[in-house]
Amino acid sequence: MLGPQELKGMIRDVPDFPGKGVLFKDITTLLSNGQAFATAIDLIGDHYINQKVDLIVAVESRGFVFGAALAYKLNCGVILIRKGGKLPYRTIKTQYELEYGTDKLEIHEDSVQQGDRVLVVDDLLATGGTSAAAVELVERLQGVVMGLAFLVELTFLKGRERLKNHEIFSLIEF
Amino acid sequence: MLGPQELKGMIRDVPDFPGKGVLFKDITTLLSNGQAFATAIDLIGDHYINQKVDLIVAVESRGFVFGAALAYKLNCGVILIRKGGKLPYRTIKTQYELEYGTDKLEIHEDSVQQGDRVLVVDDLLATGGTSAAAVELVERLQGVVMGLAFLVELTFLKGRERLKNHEIFSLIEF
Repeated sequence: MLGPQELKGMIRDVPDFPGKGVLFKDITTLLSNGQAFATAIDLIGDHYINQKVDLIVAVESRGFVFGAALAYKLNCGVILIRKGGKLPYRTIKTQYELEYGTDKLEIHEDSVQQGDRVLVVDDLLATGGTSAAAVELVERLQGVVMGLAFLVELTFLKGRERLKNHEIFSLIEF
Repeated sequence: MLGPQELKGMIRDVPDFPGKGVLFKDITTLLSNGQAFATAIDLIGDHYINQKVDLIVAVESRGFVFGAALAYKLNCGVILIRKGGKLPYRTIKTQYELEYGTDKLEIHEDSVQQGDRVLVVDDLLATGGTSAAAVELVERLQGVVMGLAFLVELTFLKGRERLKNHEIFSLIEF
């Protein structure tokens, strides 16, 4: 039986990606193991199994992997938050800061209804900038962010503090 | 009980996306309905339930949505094929043609083992250019492409002809 510690051991360190001096946590080695991937989805999903989740909002693009599988498990719809210009219908947008420069995220304006209970899903919680932007988009559509779920949390980057008004669940911490 | 015809009716036409004169088939309206999304995954997955699938290879980025949920259903691993420069570890690459110009796809060089039975998954079969590139990458790693699965096939673009050495399953045709 796999648990969070075994899953953590399946994540690969890749030095100098995406830039010199950065140690990247590569989750693709976990994804490629069917038992590990299913266990990760089950362990995250079980945290919400007795809560009412109307929608999962998944953040492009590794967030799609976890958001979609969780939506299937929890039998709820999945809404895509994408980088600027990729969603076909009318959207609302927000800009958020990266280490160098800014980036845009969008959501379809009719994707979340007032009062929908929304779980925001991504693979990684780092500084929390992307997640805070996703929360902002859902709340502007009057959705209720019931929580945020991540496979991995880099605790030393303190993203949790930036999202402190929300319940946060992460399966693996570094 | 939902079937392919009801699912087809949930796909939204968006005119002039991504360019003037193009009628875009927007699947996000289907994804946002939990029952519809789960039914789509079940109907695609049932096609493979008695076959041995070692790995699903999912193509960035809407392919991640279907590939991940199918991998969870079929209890197999999911491998990501991404646009150039996004995978952290060592990759093999291929270039493929778009309507205007070219694009690059990559896969981790250690993600597929010789003889692995691989199902390639994407949301849409159009001209088949992206799918042919994905097949090429899997076969260069000596994986066996047992089939390709799509939510939607635009039959008038004849992508199936380009992939004629492979079994193709699509749930919805336009």
